Amino acid sequence: MGNFQLIGQENRARRGSFSTPHGVIQTPVFMNVATQAAIKGAVSTEDLYRLECQIALSNTYHLHVRPGDDLIHDLGGLHRFMCWDKPILTDSGGFQIFSLAKLRKIREEGVAFNSHVDGRLLFMGPEESMKIQANLGSDIAMAFDECVKIPSPRKYVQESADRTYRWLLRCKTAWQQNCEDEHAVNPGQMLFGINQGAVFHDIRREHMKRIAELDLPGYAIGGLAVGESHQEMYDTIEAVEEWMPKDRPRYLMGVGTPGNIIEAVARGVDFFDCVMPARNGRHGHLFTKKGIINIKNEKYLRDETPIDPECRCPVCSRYSKAYLRHLFKAQEMLAMRLAVSHNLFFYNHMMEEIRQHLELGTFESYRSQYSGILDKRI
Amino acid sequence: MGNFQLIGQENRARRGSFSTPHGVIQTPVFMNVATQAAIKGAVSTEDLYRLECQIALSNTYHLHVRPGDDLIHDLGGLHRFMCWDKPILTDSGGFQIFSLAKLRKIREEGVAFNSHVDGRLLFMGPEESMKIQANLGSDIAMAFDECVKIPSPRKYVQESADRTYRWLLRCKTAWQQNCEDEHAVNPGQMLFGINQGAVFHDIRREHMKRIAELDLPGYAIGGLAVGESHQEMYDTIEAVEEWMPKDRPRYLMGVGTPGNIIEAVARGVDFFDCVMPARNGRHGHLFTKKGIINIKNEKYLRDETPIDPECRCPVCSRYSKAYLRHLFKAQEMLAMRLAVSHNLFFYNHMMEEIRQHLELGTFESYRSQYSGILDKRI
Repeated sequence: MGNFQLIGQENRARRGSFSTPHGVIQTPVFMNVATQAAIKGAVSTEDLYRLECQIALSNTYHLHVRPGDDLIHDLGGLHRFMCWDKPILTDSGGFQIFSLAKLRKIREEGVAFNSHVDGRLLFMGPEESMKIQANLGSDIAMAFDECVKIPSPRKYVQESADRTYRWLLRCKTAWQQNCEDEHAVNPGQMLFGINQGAVFHDIRREHMKRIAELDLPGYAIGGLAVGESHQEMYDTIEAVEEWMPKDRPRYLMGVGTPGNIIEAVARGVDFFDCVMPARNGRHGHLFTKKGIINIKNEKYLRDETPIDPECRCPVCSRYSKAYLRHLFKAQEMLAMRLAVSHNLFFYNHMMEEIRQHLELGTFESYRSQYSGILDKRI
Repeated sequence: MGNFQLIGQENRARRGSFSTPHGVIQTPVFMNVATQAAIKGAVSTEDLYRLECQIALSNTYHLHVRPGDDLIHDLGGLHRFMCWDKPILTDSGGFQIFSLAKLRKIREEGVAFNSHVDGRLLFMGPEESMKIQANLGSDIAMAFDECVKIPSPRKYVQESADRTYRWLLRCKTAWQQNCEDEHAVNPGQMLFGINQGAVFHDIRREHMKRIAELDLPGYAIGGLAVGESHQEMYDTIEAVEEWMPKDRPRYLMGVGTPGNIIEAVARGVDFFDCVMPARNGRHGHLFTKKGIINIKNEKYLRDETPIDPECRCPVCSRYSKAYLRHLFKAQEMLAMRLAVSHNLFFYNHMMEEIRQHLELGTFESYRSQYSGILDKRI
């Protein structure tokens, strides 16, 4: 018996549960991004419980650079450091190295790069990434991969996918060794492999088949949501989905809008993460069941109603649009906290609705009602 | 029977209670500053309940300029606007006009000035200030006064104190009329008079005697903590204290450090407010029973203990110094929220300790133990 249980299915959409050392996750699930061991917008891990959050995601690259994964290890791991006793997933650091760091050089061993904080030269390969994630003690560690740009030449994408496969073999070995270490923070840590191949369906499929053979606890589709169209993304998911093990969770990395998530659930995806609810919130863009509103709009000046009258979040149960608009206009930090809190609740609660509809076999009707409208600006 | 009840006394220090339309305040009390209808540092009014806060203070000038007191009136007043059902005190706007606004011109009628937000020309006199505060619906309105610089020439201070007295007569008339208005947001609003006179004891005393005759619900000492020494401030309090009505609360405006507050309580003061706990918190300066620490200090890098092991605040009960230091170093907004929360709790809880010691008759021993050390940087 694996950690993933498939509870039900509606067409290709899946309702499941996933056991981790810090509790069971009900899927489909949205992971709440806590990049530097903190949620952006002054939201605390204590708040996350009230925001129906099941799992937090932190960034290996950021925490390695500051405060250092050795420090977090010595202080008992990331759960204890950030006071969060539910599951945590850490990414591999690869995405940030390829998007944030300077002067990177990719070799078979790994990647040399300069820290974006102080410029010091660092090196990360599969073993380093797995060691950092072991130090952090997350429940789910992600394999170290290269996330290639879209578009990239086919030849480069093939070479990169092959290297990412070789890196995954090394990740698996390192992960198994780390879990057996007597000083392991989280000996039950699991490794997810990552599928790459840009938007070349045949490269994606071949790569997926090879990594599926490694019998890992979960699999991710990486390298999407980096500039391709929504349709290309959906087509790519469809191309690899049938080669993903049915009895393992599937994670679509960095996706996406509420509509993207609904469409990806319909195509068989279980795990999601995205900075969008926090980032949009900080700019005053708030999700509702009718679409996205800009709370700074003049029309909310005297609006006494909550952001979304249907919403049961801690913000909508107390504060008016007029007050939130005032906070944004007055540049009060509280504006961001309340906006991010609402948006995170919106995402988590949408996942709860999706799960309920999957249980009732009514997901397709939920999808047709909401997939098109939730991303619209109103 | 007035709204103020003197429950006990130890030397000149007073333990009392003050009834307002939004509940009874136990004194001595610290008022938590919510300048623009929000606490700085992303602290919400909901948090204030957990921080042992009894009363919030908002700023007439700021709220008049943005979002406008007419808007807040139409939305049911400040309590409803910011979701806070305990007492609120509003200042008169005078202090901000004299410190923030540009191109002010003082006349007998009031003060013409330019908004610090958009530069538009505004005018505020006693009637305007009282009308704005009536619109906000605070429980305690402050009289419109001139806060003179220290040092200022004696002649100017005398003229200003005389004018502030004449303004107070007009404030009293306007306040009484506003409370009788059928559209009054808070018909039980009370007016506090403000004593001025810089550090000229005779001017202070004469002014205090005259305003005491007006039989107002409370009296403040204004115009201190603007650059004079602590000793000058204490001497000035002592000079006027005996002329302040015993059966009315006394409010020392804008004061101060924990040590200042203890010393002013010892001199017969009941109400305090200060931006210090929030401002210091935002810079990582945290109050403890042993003095002020700078959480950004290298020595806290691996410190697993809370800010103050004796503290029962929501921050100290969860987070380590190492985590807080990381949040500040990583420039996470959450750093400020947690730091401000701790500091506000520290102030509110110190007032609770002062009240308990006054009840037990042990305030002098509390004073000698803490008055000297709480303000020290350690």
